[in-house]
Amino acid sequence: MTDLETSLPAVTFTPGRWGDPAAAMHLSDSVRGALGFLGIHQPGPAPVALAAVVVADSRLADGTALDALRSAVSEQHVALGHDARVAHLRGFSTPDLLRMRAGDGADAPDVVVSPATHDEVVAVLAACVAHGLALCPFAGGTSVTGGLAPRRDRPTVSLDLRRMTGLLAFDEVSQTATLAAGTRLPDAERLLGELGFELGHFPQSYEGATIGGCAVTRSAGQSSAGYGRFDDMVVALTVATPIGTAQVGTAPKSAAGPDLRQLFLGSEGAFGVVTSVTVRVHPLPTVRRFSGWHFPDFASGAAAMRALAQATVRPTVMRLSDEAETGLNLANPSAAGASSVSGGCLMVVGFEGDEADVACREGYVGARLAASGGTELGPEPGEAWRVGRFRGPYLRDPLLDAGALVETLETVTWWSNLDRLKDAVTAAVTEALGAQGTPAVVMCHISHVYPTGASLYFTVIAKALDDPLTQWGRAKQAANAAIRAAGASITHHHAVGTDHRATYLEEIGEVQFAALRAVKAALDPTDVCNPGILIP
Amino acid sequence: MTDLETSLPAVTFTPGRWGDPAAAMHLSDSVRGALGFLGIHQPGPAPVALAAVVVADSRLADGTALDALRSAVSEQHVALGHDARVAHLRGFSTPDLLRMRAGDGADAPDVVVSPATHDEVVAVLAACVAHGLALCPFAGGTSVTGGLAPRRDRPTVSLDLRRMTGLLAFDEVSQTATLAAGTRLPDAERLLGELGFELGHFPQSYEGATIGGCAVTRSAGQSSAGYGRFDDMVVALTVATPIGTAQVGTAPKSAAGPDLRQLFLGSEGAFGVVTSVTVRVHPLPTVRRFSGWHFPDFASGAAAMRALAQATVRPTVMRLSDEAETGLNLANPSAAGASSVSGGCLMVVGFEGDEADVACREGYVGARLAASGGTELGPEPGEAWRVGRFRGPYLRDPLLDAGALVETLETVTWWSNLDRLKDAVTAAVTEALGAQGTPAVVMCHISHVYPTGASLYFTVIAKALDDPLTQWGRAKQAANAAIRAAGASITHHHAVGTDHRATYLEEIGEVQFAALRAVKAALDPTDVCNPGILIP
Repeated sequence: MTDLETSLPAVTFTPGRWGDPAAAMHLSDSVRGALGFLGIHQPGPAPVALAAVVVADSRLADGTALDALRSAVSEQHVALGHDARVAHLRGFSTPDLLRMRAGDGADAPDVVVSPATHDEVVAVLAACVAHGLALCPFAGGTSVTGGLAPRRDRPTVSLDLRRMTGLLAFDEVSQTATLAAGTRLPDAERLLGELGFELGHFPQSYEGATIGGCAVTRSAGQSSAGYGRFDDMVVALTVATPIGTAQVGTAPKSAAGPDLRQLFLGSEGAFGVVTSVTVRVHPLPTVRRFSGWHFPDFASGAAAMRALAQATVRPTVMRLSDEAETGLNLANPSAAGASSVSGGCLMVVGFEGDEADVACREGYVGARLAASGGTELGPEPGEAWRVGRFRGPYLRDPLLDAGALVETLETVTWWSNLDRLKDAVTAAVTEALGAQGTPAVVMCHISHVYPTGASLYFTVIAKALDDPLTQWGRAKQAANAAIRAAGASITHHHAVGTDHRATYLEEIGEVQFAALRAVKAALDPTDVCNPGILIP
Repeated sequence: MTDLETSLPAVTFTPGRWGDPAAAMHLSDSVRGALGFLGIHQPGPAPVALAAVVVADSRLADGTALDALRSAVSEQHVALGHDARVAHLRGFSTPDLLRMRAGDGADAPDVVVSPATHDEVVAVLAACVAHGLALCPFAGGTSVTGGLAPRRDRPTVSLDLRRMTGLLAFDEVSQTATLAAGTRLPDAERLLGELGFELGHFPQSYEGATIGGCAVTRSAGQSSAGYGRFDDMVVALTVATPIGTAQVGTAPKSAAGPDLRQLFLGSEGAFGVVTSVTVRVHPLPTVRRFSGWHFPDFASGAAAMRALAQATVRPTVMRLSDEAETGLNLANPSAAGASSVSGGCLMVVGFEGDEADVACREGYVGARLAASGGTELGPEPGEAWRVGRFRGPYLRDPLLDAGALVETLETVTWWSNLDRLKDAVTAAVTEALGAQGTPAVVMCHISHVYPTGASLYFTVIAKALDDPLTQWGRAKQAANAAIRAAGASITHHHAVGTDHRATYLEEIGEVQFAALRAVKAALDPTDVCNPGILIP
């Protein structure tokens, strides 16, 4: 058994470029050929060197506010320099990347503060309240929805949580682990693996993402069918708010009022700073078996996934690429463009556990997939996907370099609405880009399933125009409108940030927004915590 | 296969006496013998006839407020009579029952209003806001935590939701059903059963409980290991609040901010009235197989349950009685006092599904239970439990009649804390009653398990003193303090109401309470909705 996931190191991303620089990808000839069909023949503009990114003067270069921050964490952990501010500037949405490549650092935070403990976070929060500063937590820096772009109407502190790392408590009997918020996922798996346990949370941002970031954005990993979403894994959180610290979560489940864990999960830093998270863990699997299945079309594959999602016995991983994604072999990014599956749709099915458990589930699931019209392709396509499971985002930078516009977006709805939603989003994005003279390839997969519905994850590629920000802005707006019109949720696991905020507010309506705004006003009365994120 | 659950009719309870009057139970000779050991030889005082229960004059007997309520629902659905007010007076906690038996109806609602639609609920709410009335939703009336006892500092409307019944929408593909809040669980199962589906929510209050009540109290049913708690089943709710109607829940799961379904689930009517609930359903099982397992002691049985709760493949039902409960045969109320299991602990394990699914899980689970030291007893003890699963509460009235004090209480904690919690609560209740000269039998079972922890459900029997309210009050206070001191949650599925409120506020702490209070103030600015319930 290859334990690729747990052997990957945590990576400090270069600002504006995804992942481990040593693992950068190059486009295959067949992808380059496909780009030709989209009219992409000229490389895009070369990115501006990081040292040349232009930032505004820090509004915190001297004075009592800076002193207060320094006394909260000590002087060496307060950074005002150009490089530190650029490194905490933005995440990885298309607008984020395009601005960074253009050298635009206008919205850099004014100062970067790196606490080491919960008490230091409390002290930083107090300094921000006292001096009218905004505070934006930063950990993995992998947001793709503008989650690192609070309102800049006052000096902004980027609170770097990556010194707050490690396993703070472990309960082998209850199978729970308390991890500091800044612990990156590969570090969490390494620490747990030494004890014979695993968290099993594998989002595509795995190499950079952190425990705290996964909590406040309701992340979902590729093994969600087996181990649940991140919000399913969280049993308790410690949150530093401007009015005090909350210990949230007393027991696995309870009837003691509303489940307030679910108020802080997904709060995106708007109510305070999550400083540690207690998660459910499980013994390291002794068996991991992945395989590929072929379905004649997306509809039959989706119906088979639905049957499994609604059954009691399920695989650990389920993922279905549509015809376009299967054709471009995006399920295997290292070999993208050279699909071994001819026509139809590829489904990846994976099992993890002990031999008895996996054998029990494999037999049941295999029989159901075959009965649903699937053909087993053997382990190769499944293992190829597993080994390449974090490689997808590495394709983005070389595609931008090659002159392409490339972005992903995702949504979730009930099973009965899935086809309609897929068609509506595909049509909206295709039309919005086509109307600008740039025909698009729109691909889709299902990677998270529930008994009552599933997510849809879209990848869009088109030729970049001279003003790609406006170009993509139109497509994104069309996609958001299509998602809302179809009654789906604006995001399944990318979160709201600033990019989805307007559509999100339409989705939840006035009464729910009144509840959110009231919580915000009660816990953060002077709007210090991520102003403008999630809540305008 | 006997479908006992779905063939049981919904029952309108007689105020102050549990369940279907035609199904009333009598104590077996062996229970009567056991009562002798507790010094119980004289029957308790006979209950006052319902017609003789003394209620205060209605504060709404005439005037514009009454006119407003009548115009909201029509005159025939506004009741001011003695019997209607007594029928909406209280639930089934020990203080509730003792007061009712004593003829004390001082806290009867001033008027009973029965809307038929969501819009009529909105109109009643508006009338309450306009005229300064309090509104207390009533449906099953099965609260055991003072959930029907709002503050009486202003005239109180009991909002009877039982005209709001039925299946409002059904989505066979997504396997979801929208049910009106007043639909009682047996009616929900009958309506779904006609379509080939099942909800699978079987709390002990099944015959009387309603869909809306299960939502706002975070009910948990006996099949929670297989089908989840009620809050797991809910995918959407419609809530009428004083500031407007909220449609909560867009998709199965989402990263669009906090999961606000979890704010209304468990809200106990404090934020508004839940008028309909959309739940996940599943095809009617074609196989139901229950069996008994014997474990030498509670510790080994609990360890076996933990191993299953932490595995991927699980039964649908798991329940472990401790030595005392096994000895009194409380898992089989119809035969209580004559246990067929000699010594040790009885575990009931049940599987529901289709033959392939059940066969897969049964083999895996059986091997694990045997490896954990269990001995299979065959189907009889399991089937006896299944057939009698709603009979337990019927024992209470004859026990009170016989001069006993009898009550249940429950809590939940992490697995590593379970033994300590069980010992602490048992000791606290035993000492509090023993100190009053009434030795108690304290029995316990585990009936809800999670990967990280489990619930504990206690049944307490002692001789009733002349002032049983004060007597039980001391025991309950000791139990609450022991639960808090052990760091457990004050309730796993009975909810907070007024009886658990003080301990609940200690459990969640000031920051979380500030969030709750802010939501209450935003959604119910004049404190119309269940004042004093959950939030003081």
